[in-house]
Amino acid sequence: MRTLEFDAQRHALRLLDQTRLPHETVYVTCNTAEDVAQAIRGLQVRGAPAIGVAAAYGLVLATRTAPADAAEFAQHVERAAEDLRRTRPTAVNLQWALDRMLARARAVAQRDGTEAARSALEQLAHTLAEEDVAANRRMGAFGLDLVPDGANVLTHCNAGALATVDYGTALGVVRAAHEAGRHIHVYVDETRPFLQGARLTAWELQQLGVPMTLITDNMAGHFMSRGNVDLVVVGADRIAANGDVANKIGTYSVAVLAHENGIPFYVAAPISTIDVSVASGADIPIEERSSREVVEIAGVPIAPRGVEAAHPAFDVTPARYVTAIVTERGVLRAPYERSLADAVRGARTVAA
Amino acid sequence: MRTLEFDAQRHALRLLDQTRLPHETVYVTCNTAEDVAQAIRGLQVRGAPAIGVAAAYGLVLATRTAPADAAEFAQHVERAAEDLRRTRPTAVNLQWALDRMLARARAVAQRDGTEAARSALEQLAHTLAEEDVAANRRMGAFGLDLVPDGANVLTHCNAGALATVDYGTALGVVRAAHEAGRHIHVYVDETRPFLQGARLTAWELQQLGVPMTLITDNMAGHFMSRGNVDLVVVGADRIAANGDVANKIGTYSVAVLAHENGIPFYVAAPISTIDVSVASGADIPIEERSSREVVEIAGVPIAPRGVEAAHPAFDVTPARYVTAIVTERGVLRAPYERSLADAVRGARTVAA
Repeated sequence: MRTLEFDAQRHALRLLDQTRLPHETVYVTCNTAEDVAQAIRGLQVRGAPAIGVAAAYGLVLATRTAPADAAEFAQHVERAAEDLRRTRPTAVNLQWALDRMLARARAVAQRDGTEAARSALEQLAHTLAEEDVAANRRMGAFGLDLVPDGANVLTHCNAGALATVDYGTALGVVRAAHEAGRHIHVYVDETRPFLQGARLTAWELQQLGVPMTLITDNMAGHFMSRGNVDLVVVGADRIAANGDVANKIGTYSVAVLAHENGIPFYVAAPISTIDVSVASGADIPIEERSSREVVEIAGVPIAPRGVEAAHPAFDVTPARYVTAIVTERGVLRAPYERSLADAVRGARTVAA
Repeated sequence: MRTLEFDAQRHALRLLDQTRLPHETVYVTCNTAEDVAQAIRGLQVRGAPAIGVAAAYGLVLATRTAPADAAEFAQHVERAAEDLRRTRPTAVNLQWALDRMLARARAVAQRDGTEAARSALEQLAHTLAEEDVAANRRMGAFGLDLVPDGANVLTHCNAGALATVDYGTALGVVRAAHEAGRHIHVYVDETRPFLQGARLTAWELQQLGVPMTLITDNMAGHFMSRGNVDLVVVGADRIAANGDVANKIGTYSVAVLAHENGIPFYVAAPISTIDVSVASGADIPIEERSSREVVEIAGVPIAPRGVEAAHPAFDVTPARYVTAIVTERGVLRAPYERSLADAVRGARTVAA
């Protein structure tokens, strides 16, 4: 099954619970927008593209209890969108998906009534989900040129099928190379504190049969310095107009270490991750999560009682460390102000 | 109590079990050299200076069962030394302490008989222990110049009292600054996989009342890039003649990130950590430990069954990233070939 699936008959969103993987395959059923918001906050569904689509389905669920009056219907859906919007501040795909859904809701409810809007929103959420998978497959095809046969690839966090509706962004590139018969090997950063690498990326690669070695985050530099890593590919939660990349905490360190060792550092992300309204990474809000998620691992305390941990969930990698950005519209390179603006404009033209 | 204490009456070495901290304060009693070797391999005692002194006491324990004949006595002690020497390959203090003990054993056994040698070895082990504490206090005093009031200090792993007989090397510098009334704050890298930072450094700083924030290893770069870190100080397991530093895995990454952000990166280590017989870091053996220590945390599996992890326990930081090396003979700077050789020569002169 996919990361998320909408059951139209039961009017429910089913999510593969990512807090329980890899040891248990458990599904979460969301019947309301609030259920979806809670699943996003609790990291049961995570990954920028996946939470965008999950939030879209959250609005579909909200239409179930919305009033029939067009203005009230719009208000009801907008309130649900506000709750979903506040769940996680860094990934822009969430905002992007909600904005697309709200624009459709307003337009259709006004013109054709709320029943038509309900159905249009469900249709749009399906479209967003299908677009996501298609974009990932195109990224994989474009990224293929960057992954030579025999390459040792390093990745951080999980930008795989689980971070998207299916196939993955950064892991989509890895997967495309593997499916093309290239003999690759992946170094998987475990990615503290939530261990997305050890729990999720390792699980996906194991299922795909891609050779891998799990490492702690602090080993990445060591293996780079020994000449064991040929390229890095990671996902993104938001890309500013100048090419600065917000992604899972630790990405910045990986990028600096790759730069210092002359190793290409690639970012794979859909156009919806690019936020041209934000000039640079300095303007991207960084989510702070709880100390507890650091000082406990699987419920086991690892530090003395009373010790407080910092927990920025993301960091910003300046564009100067980014060799290229793989999108569904091609591989973008510096100067990013221009290449990103062109790609976003191209995508808008296609969508219009 | 200290990291290790010798009970002359019971002829036993007591170690504070560092695998059980911070949740339990448990002692391990070693009655034989093999007990000590096992405690070193199992990380119940760790830290380059501490394992050097522990191994010295291991030889004292070996004398208990040594034959009275001088040649056989020497052979017996040498065999025990070989076993201890093989426990951990990277830290040179272990080799250094064993070599000093063996030289004394041979000299005294030959000249004054084995009973005198027994007592001379016990005396020398005590001297090594006292020298260690005195060296750390001197490092603290020299390092004081490097830690301004209000400084945010980042440290990796544990180079504190627990890594030595008492007081600590890198944490000795932190402690000296704190005791001098400077208002400092420490970012503590948790230091996967063994979590020496979260478990041991946090525990020591808590007891000393030094303000701190625990972070995952992959957050260090983020806080450096935000201007939150003023200096880095770490310990060392072996320093090559050219100033390359072998230390806990992840140190290299911290050094590169500090360099990239214009932050001074200091190493604090006794002269016994300098190995002028090794030209550069490329010649320092890096201990490989088990995959299991990575894929399980406190006995809880964090990765899918069957996933293998790499586990280099140390890495090498090239001398070009090292701002200065704090020793008990002063603060050494580049060119390290000269400053290290001078310091080692000076120490030999004093010891002779």
